[in-house]
Amino acid sequence: MARRTKIYEGKAKTLYEGPEPDTLVQYFKDDATAFNAEKKAVIDGKGVLNNRLSEYFMVGLEQIGVPTHFLKRLNMREQLIRRVEIIPLEVIVRNFAAGSFSKRMGIEEGTPMPRPIVEFSYKDDSLGDPLVPEEYVIAFGWASQQELDDIVALALRVNDFLSGVMYGVGIKLVDFKIELGRVYDGDFMRLVVADEISPDSCRLWDIETGRKLDKDVFRQDLGDLADAYTEVATRLGVMPSNVTHPSGKPTLIN
Amino acid sequence: MARRTKIYEGKAKTLYEGPEPDTLVQYFKDDATAFNAEKKAVIDGKGVLNNRLSEYFMVGLEQIGVPTHFLKRLNMREQLIRRVEIIPLEVIVRNFAAGSFSKRMGIEEGTPMPRPIVEFSYKDDSLGDPLVPEEYVIAFGWASQQELDDIVALALRVNDFLSGVMYGVGIKLVDFKIELGRVYDGDFMRLVVADEISPDSCRLWDIETGRKLDKDVFRQDLGDLADAYTEVATRLGVMPSNVTHPSGKPTLIN
Ligand SMILES: Nc1ncnc2c1ncn2[C@@H]1O[C@H](COP(=O)(O)OP(=O)(O)O)[C@@H](O)[C@H]1O
Ligand SMILES: Nc1ncnc2c1ncn2[C@@H]1O[C@H](COP(=O)(O)OP(=O)(O)O)[C@@H](O)[C@H]1O
Ligand SMILES: [Mg+2]
Ligand SMILES: [Mg+2]
Repeated sequence: MARRTKIYEGKAKTLYEGPEPDTLVQYFKDDATAFNAEKKAVIDGKGVLNNRLSEYFMVGLEQIGVPTHFLKRLNMREQLIRRVEIIPLEVIVRNFAAGSFSKRMGIEEGTPMPRPIVEFSYKDDSLGDPLVPEEYVIAFGWASQQELDDIVALALRVNDFLSGVMYGVGIKLVDFKIELGRVYDGDFMRLVVADEISPDSCRLWDIETGRKLDKDVFRQDLGDLADAYTEVATRLGVMPSNVTHPSGKPTLIN
Repeated sequence: MARRTKIYEGKAKTLYEGPEPDTLVQYFKDDATAFNAEKKAVIDGKGVLNNRLSEYFMVGLEQIGVPTHFLKRLNMREQLIRRVEIIPLEVIVRNFAAGSFSKRMGIEEGTPMPRPIVEFSYKDDSLGDPLVPEEYVIAFGWASQQELDDIVALALRVNDFLSGVMYGVGIKLVDFKIELGRVYDGDFMRLVVADEISPDSCRLWDIETGRKLDKDVFRQDLGDLADAYTEVATRLGVMPSNVTHPSGKPTLIN
């Protein structure tokens, strides 16, 4: 294979220049990080699972008319995406209290929100992705007021859809984070869902047992992270049925 | 059991006065009708399945903050609901062309809509529930402009959520119909999803095979309707696992 130009190496993914203009190849690594990368590990098979799951959610969103960066899956660890101008925000939607919100607000994990809450973190690792009011977003020019309104509307649509996907397979969508980007078509600009949607970026609890099926399994040392993600993929019928644990099937891993 | 006051007997359900003011008991019959009741049959177990499925969808909607009339399931065929002032509209959301739309517009079944389309039929059996423009809704006072805006927003949220539920279990939500009603709390009024959400009121196609899993199985004589509904219920984990076909388990039928 010809050498590819690496554009960016992040904590969980690497971006390469794509075959067409305005495309990128997104490679999903097995690396897991938490607490602003203070905790690190390599989780065999995580990248394979997240590549599949992100594809699955993005395709579903496209089908209901929420635009995304997803173009096509290339192999077990890579997908072709549209190159976008990333808005430097983590857009977080919370249905139940958990994680940093619970700590910050003194509200017990699992407490339902009065309504879904949309909040923003400024994407900057050196600052630890600080929570920012909408006011900052506009004042610092990260997004316009119109974009912000569109972002909130999109985030709530993603929430309704993903809540449904999860409800259908007995999982509660506690919260999630998305990133959005701008794509240009001549003079026209539109927002698309970018980055990834996976158990790395969602909190997912089994409705019956409360079992955590997301990155908190790693953050809180609750067991095998790949097992938890495999459970999500299996319930959604996302992984080929002959794969039970991708790390055990090296032939399937690119 | 004490005699109950019957309020209304419809094609698929019977309404009784409920135990508390402003409540009703909704009894799900096994009767199936189509083409404005020109075609009729009794489908063993359909009422049991729809009672469960409508509960399942309404509970899910409540959880994402879409208010519904559902209070609790009473038994295999009955649920307790809030009595509402029904808005005399069938609110239809279409993601793909099908049924009367395909015929009316000459657009082949399965063709994706440019975006989800919300349309209204005036609920009147003697007229065959005619399609009406929004203009009529306002002019005839069936709903105010503000209510109509809220109805469209609610219908689209229901669409996003139900599309997700179905996507999660390999089913395509082609279209569906809901009814909405008003509930009053002193001077305050709000809209809630009423009637039922079930395979009687949705078009559901298996994503892989295209198999129809909704009332079209009855309309078009495609096989056993209860089998199709059981397939939906089973995928969603809605029916108790010991029930495969409710008509075969008389002990479970009230
Ligand atoms: N479609 C896209 N176009 C350009 N950049 C993207 C796109 N999708 C995601 N990104 C960016 O690529 C990076 C993904 O790698 P990741 O490992 O998540 O990085 P990080 O450690 O910065 O979070 C992120 O910085 C994200 O903002
Ligand atoms: N919560 C509610 N309060 C009052 N009426 C309701 C409620 N939910 C549904 N209905 C009405 O109850 C009837 C349900 O029975 P159904 O068999 O569907 O009747 P129909 O043959 O008129 O469609 C419908 O007329 C519907 O509008
Ligand atoms: Mg990232
Ligand atoms: Mg009816």
